[in-house]
Amino acid sequence: MIRVWRYVVGHDGRETIDFDALPRAVAPGDAVVWVDASSPSDDELRTLRENLGLSATVVDAILNPRERTKLMRYGDYFHVAVHDCESAGSTVISREIDIVTGPGWLVTVRHPSADGTPVDLDEVARRFELQRSEHSATEQGFLLWALFDVIVDRYFEVTDAVDDRLDEIEEVVFSQIPPPAVPREIFTVRSDLTTLRRAAAPMREVVNAIIRREIDFVNEPAIVHFHDVYDRVLRVGDLVEAQRDLLTGLLEANLAVTSNQLNQVMKKMTSWGAILIVATLIAGIYGMNFRHMPELHWQYGYLMAVAMMGISTLVLYRVFKRKGWL
Amino acid sequence: MIRVWRYVVGHDGRETIDFDALPRAVAPGDAVVWVDASSPSDDELRTLRENLGLSATVVDAILNPRERTKLMRYGDYFHVAVHDCESAGSTVISREIDIVTGPGWLVTVRHPSADGTPVDLDEVARRFELQRSEHSATEQGFLLWALFDVIVDRYFEVTDAVDDRLDEIEEVVFSQIPPPAVPREIFTVRSDLTTLRRAAAPMREVVNAIIRREIDFVNEPAIVHFHDVYDRVLRVGDLVEAQRDLLTGLLEANLAVTSNQLNQVMKKMTSWGAILIVATLIAGIYGMNFRHMPELHWQYGYLMAVAMMGISTLVLYRVFKRKGWL
Amino acid sequence: MIRVWRYVVGHDGRETIDFDALPRAVAPGDAVVWVDASSPSDDELRTLRENLGLSATVVDAILNPRERTKLMRYGDYFHVAVHDCESAGSTVISREIDIVTGPGWLVTVRHPSADGTPVDLDEVARRFELQRSEHSATEQGFLLWALFDVIVDRYFEVTDAVDDRLDEIEEVVFSQIPPPAVPREIFTVRSDLTTLRRAAAPMREVVNAIIRREIDFVNEPAIVHFHDVYDRVLRVGDLVEAQRDLLTGLLEANLAVTSNQLNQVMKKMTSWGAILIVATLIAGIYGMNFRHMPELHWQYGYLMAVAMMGISTLVLYRVFKRKGWL
Amino acid sequence: MIRVWRYVVGHDGRETIDFDALPRAVAPGDAVVWVDASSPSDDELRTLRENLGLSATVVDAILNPRERTKLMRYGDYFHVAVHDCESAGSTVISREIDIVTGPGWLVTVRHPSADGTPVDLDEVARRFELQRSEHSATEQGFLLWALFDVIVDRYFEVTDAVDDRLDEIEEVVFSQIPPPAVPREIFTVRSDLTTLRRAAAPMREVVNAIIRREIDFVNEPAIVHFHDVYDRVLRVGDLVEAQRDLLTGLLEANLAVTSNQLNQVMKKMTSWGAILIVATLIAGIYGMNFRHMPELHWQYGYLMAVAMMGISTLVLYRVFKRKGWL
Amino acid sequence: MIRVWRYVVGHDGRETIDFDALPRAVAPGDAVVWVDASSPSDDELRTLRENLGLSATVVDAILNPRERTKLMRYGDYFHVAVHDCESAGSTVISREIDIVTGPGWLVTVRHPSADGTPVDLDEVARRFELQRSEHSATEQGFLLWALFDVIVDRYFEVTDAVDDRLDEIEEVVFSQIPPPAVPREIFTVRSDLTTLRRAAAPMREVVNAIIRREIDFVNEPAIVHFHDVYDRVLRVGDLVEAQRDLLTGLLEANLAVTSNQLNQVMKKMTSWGAILIVATLIAGIYGMNFRHMPELHWQYGYLMAVAMMGISTLVLYRVFKRKGWL
Repeated sequence: MIRVWRYVVGHDGRETIDFDALPRAVAPGDAVVWVDASSPSDDELRTLRENLGLSATVVDAILNPRERTKLMRYGDYFHVAVHDCESAGSTVISREIDIVTGPGWLVTVRHPSADGTPVDLDEVARRFELQRSEHSATEQGFLLWALFDVIVDRYFEVTDAVDDRLDEIEEVVFSQIPPPAVPREIFTVRSDLTTLRRAAAPMREVVNAIIRREIDFVNEPAIVHFHDVYDRVLRVGDLVEAQRDLLTGLLEANLAVTSNQLNQVMKKMTSWGAILIVATLIAGIYGMNFRHMPELHWQYGYLMAVAMMGISTLVLYRVFKRKGWL
Repeated sequence: MIRVWRYVVGHDGRETIDFDALPRAVAPGDAVVWVDASSPSDDELRTLRENLGLSATVVDAILNPRERTKLMRYGDYFHVAVHDCESAGSTVISREIDIVTGPGWLVTVRHPSADGTPVDLDEVARRFELQRSEHSATEQGFLLWALFDVIVDRYFEVTDAVDDRLDEIEEVVFSQIPPPAVPREIFTVRSDLTTLRRAAAPMREVVNAIIRREIDFVNEPAIVHFHDVYDRVLRVGDLVEAQRDLLTGLLEANLAVTSNQLNQVMKKMTSWGAILIVATLIAGIYGMNFRHMPELHWQYGYLMAVAMMGISTLVLYRVFKRKGWL
Repeated sequence: MIRVWRYVVGHDGRETIDFDALPRAVAPGDAVVWVDASSPSDDELRTLRENLGLSATVVDAILNPRERTKLMRYGDYFHVAVHDCESAGSTVISREIDIVTGPGWLVTVRHPSADGTPVDLDEVARRFELQRSEHSATEQGFLLWALFDVIVDRYFEVTDAVDDRLDEIEEVVFSQIPPPAVPREIFTVRSDLTTLRRAAAPMREVVNAIIRREIDFVNEPAIVHFHDVYDRVLRVGDLVEAQRDLLTGLLEANLAVTSNQLNQVMKKMTSWGAILIVATLIAGIYGMNFRHMPELHWQYGYLMAVAMMGISTLVLYRVFKRKGWL
Repeated sequence: MIRVWRYVVGHDGRETIDFDALPRAVAPGDAVVWVDASSPSDDELRTLRENLGLSATVVDAILNPRERTKLMRYGDYFHVAVHDCESAGSTVISREIDIVTGPGWLVTVRHPSADGTPVDLDEVARRFELQRSEHSATEQGFLLWALFDVIVDRYFEVTDAVDDRLDEIEEVVFSQIPPPAVPREIFTVRSDLTTLRRAAAPMREVVNAIIRREIDFVNEPAIVHFHDVYDRVLRVGDLVEAQRDLLTGLLEANLAVTSNQLNQVMKKMTSWGAILIVATLIAGIYGMNFRHMPELHWQYGYLMAVAMMGISTLVLYRVFKRKGWL
Repeated sequence: MIRVWRYVVGHDGRETIDFDALPRAVAPGDAVVWVDASSPSDDELRTLRENLGLSATVVDAILNPRERTKLMRYGDYFHVAVHDCESAGSTVISREIDIVTGPGWLVTVRHPSADGTPVDLDEVARRFELQRSEHSATEQGFLLWALFDVIVDRYFEVTDAVDDRLDEIEEVVFSQIPPPAVPREIFTVRSDLTTLRRAAAPMREVVNAIIRREIDFVNEPAIVHFHDVYDRVLRVGDLVEAQRDLLTGLLEANLAVTSNQLNQVMKKMTSWGAILIVATLIAGIYGMNFRHMPELHWQYGYLMAVAMMGISTLVLYRVFKRKGWL
């Protein structure tokens, strides 16, 4: 599925143009052409390649959906691979987006994640069009910026979701009886943070390269906006580190809590065991069959034995209570 | 809520001026205007923006209260985002302060923390005025310095409070019976140190940038003072690392203590269990109903049995005592 | 075992030439000669040395199969030591490949791993020949690139295999009863990742050196391909770090799960112990031989005792169930 | 308490001069004046400030006894803050020494530690005088060097003391029954190493600055000596890291030992419990009141029962022994 | 004990010369004089100092046997302190060797380790003489290289010994019953690796300095050989890190295995305890003395009771077996 939009300088709105008309539509300075392909077929990629004069290497790189986040120059155009992250239910999904951009055109290729849904880029169009109208300029860099801006925003959505899950875990870890699912929950959040970090960390270098003007047709007004993106990428990194730190703290706390509880349980067990075994011992003694056991013939021998059991129980209970074992 | 103070060069004290009179009040070199806004409304921000000629981007940054500590240049004025920390009860609160400063004016925008109270800046005014009178100069840099000085001082208040809590935890961990709340307490202090570190660590870069004269209207006398701030920011960092280290040590010690105690409890349990079960076994033996059990008919059979129990108890008690199990 | 292949510029296919004809076969610019030796004998190495004019030091280095991954210049030729990794059954094997290359010739010396099988290099020939036909050029750098390309690809095969094993471990750790083999499995994967990292990490420097044109006869078309290799080497490094991180998470989770289960078991034990000991105590009481125990003479005394046991069991069961101990 | 010593070039020994005569005594090149103040009063500091023309900032810095180790230039004189460490009993004390030095004079301000004793500097005088006589030169840098030399030597005394304590801990951890005080001991040593590290680590930068000639009146002969100090500061750092590493190893070993012991105790408990409960069960069986129990009427029934108990005990004991549980 | 050997350029073999003849023997360019002192007396050192014109500082440094590995220039000669490591029995010994070298001469001072044996340097002479004959040159740098070459080779011997011990530990950790000595063994290996690392890590800098030609009379042919030493020093560092990593893995695995075993033991105990206590309860019930217990008068009551015990044991055994507790 391929969609081509064209933004003409000096005109509001966009025109949807035909894929075949692509070569004529590109006019650096006069218009920006945005080709958006979602899981394109080999046929479509070949056409794209011919229309824009892309090298085989860059098409190979696009087809390989397991690339590192990076920015690479190919003659007069650039290949940027970034990763979108999304918090879906209890796990974080990472999806690659390949961006190829040259003077006057920008191609986005979206790869679906394991469960099949590709990234939604409507918000990118919205932000780009807003910037156009605000600046009354059709700066191509704004489109690239809108892409980065949306992706980084989504990183924050993920960290927010992780924050909520961390709060939940914290509550549960320090509750009366931490449920046995805590280690699994902690492990899942940890994996998710690893996924997010792998997506976000190399972003820093890429944005920095753009700020250093490595992409020569991204001009000053867009660069200013990229400074803000850079700052937020740093902040995501800080957040992820802080959250990992918290998570480690929670895991350690969980271990300590479990260990404490085991101690508690063992003490209780020892105490009750001792109390009951003393009573049983008394019963055992008076269950012996000796002929000459005076107590057995006493009128209140039975009462006495039961009383002894009761008293020993009470005394031991008090002793253990005072020791903090019960 | 917006408050505007004006410090005229060569005059003691300050004049409170009207917010609308702001544009005329700014006179670089002749006076310093300090605009202090606490959770300003959108209306107030717009007026502020128009009066001082701020760009939309900087106002956006001010409105977003989740920024990283940083120093950013916008034409001839600067945006500094810092975080104040305060130890409130058993937790550390971090609140953002946005500072925008140009030649002759300085705006502080205070954001309240989750519980609603904004940072108190009276102490900043006091220190600035003290410096003015000491140097007989109305250096604008002094105002910025006073802000940093107060904020860094508050970091130390937090580390002092953490020191006290660490002492408490240490005492409790190595007490006879470490209470089960220790892991939670350790986790809370750890989170607080993470909060403090996230506030204090990037401060270093910002102060360093000021010392390197990135803000061109901050002059030599103030720079000298910033050297001292820089030194103390480093010291806070060192302290936080040392405290984190101590905390890790305490957590590990707590685990080891708990583990030791479990050992102790288990040994006690085993010992007492063995002692009592031997006595019970003796009682059980003489509770058997065999016709031919000579001891049962002995005159002192019962006494003998009880004596056997007593002796076995004594002997085992001694054995276990010597082994250090009881 | 030594095999010599010769690729003549402008001719498809390769010619297998005699080892003795080697000196005459080398013709920089006109042909590329690839000498492939698998665990060569000392004799063969001496002949090789004389034919290509290698120094004694480089032959020493080749004979020592325990070298670090590196790139070293010897006059006008170069020695590159790399390590191939392979996932064999449940363990990762690392095998050294020594590459010596000068203008017009390239020698590969393959060392077998502990179990005797050397690296298979057929795939290298295939890729080199593909590049030749694609570029219609017999660039010597392509041969070197093909070697690196194949080796790095194999790193990915290893990380894929590790991914599968991590998934298995994860499933097993969080299953009802984690089998006792989990720590060993985790340790094995950890060792394997250490092996892979030691092979892959220094690769980065070597590829970077090639990209910086340290090997002067590797030309632009091949360098472009090395950029891609470099990128993938970085990615392997990232993957290994992420996998190590996951593994640590799994180990910690395993410890926490085991600890949780111990807690569970102890609680169950305490509960059932208490229930049964209470019943035993009742039986013990009515087993006492006192003359005056009215209950013993009651018509339904026995029923009463059994009922007491049943009721105490039921009540305690409910109490423990509610406490979540059973 | 202030003491002023004057070393005249070309004269052996020193003259004690009056504090008030200080301004006239300073003669760069002709003499070195050493002012040593131990917890000086505000009055004394003011006089000192006036006599030597110190700025208010440096006096403030001296009064604040919680500074970071650092070297700071103030016009033509320098402020150096260092920390002396001492192993007192079972804990390490860190005490600040402020050094202010200008051409021809050097001031040392000693701050007492929490328990009141200031650092003893007699050894510094001894070493300085030794160097004077050896070099027949009254180089001011020698005095500064003597100060650093003594302080760094004392760091080594601390690491030696720590070494002894580590040896003790090691012996105790691997003894039959590690005493429960081990975690506390480990924690104390850890805190002490943190104290030492905080004192010694920034020393590196300070000595390096002196070697780079930041203090312009410290000349070549003294610089050569500072190289040795630098080397030893590095060595202290290495030692502290190695000791921390060892300490971590000991803590982990202690945990493992405790865990092993728990295992051992549990196995013993299980084994003895099983043995005794089997005997008790036999006794219980023959304590049943069935009318028709043939064994009860046998002549040697009782013997048989006791024999069964003995045999079951023996058999089980052997089984458990072979399994390594007893 | 001092020994002086002289290698004359153009002559094979060496001449042993008298210590007193030392000054006349030194002839840079014409001969290399190697003075080897093993724990020299103060007298010998003084003579050495006078003969070679060494400064007091370098002699002090030599006398202090607790120095960091380093390379230091003293006028036209150099002091190199290195550490030899040896695996002696179950521990690693580190011994300092001080090398002082100037044009035409090289002094080695060997310090014995705690147990008294100094390093053996015969192998150094052998390698130096081999290089001489191979290159037909009496390059002084070859002697220095031979020293480093031998020392680095010995590092590898240590890592090989550690590898063997790690294999042993691995086997033992995952055996049926890990012996309680495992933590101690792991701790010892860890200390040994720390010792080795402290010896080998700073070596890198020293060798690098030699390669950068800091020692001006070490010429090209020797430098080439030092490249190889450098490479191997790096490799030792890699190996030590990998071994430390493995060791950590083993310690963690040991903890997990112990924890698993405790779980296993506890489950077994619970199960057997429950089985036996149920049987005991049945015996207890029929040991009660109620007058009206019909079963007691049944012909096969006893058989029934024993059967009940047997059946309950069997049923519970099966239940626990299926749960994986037995």
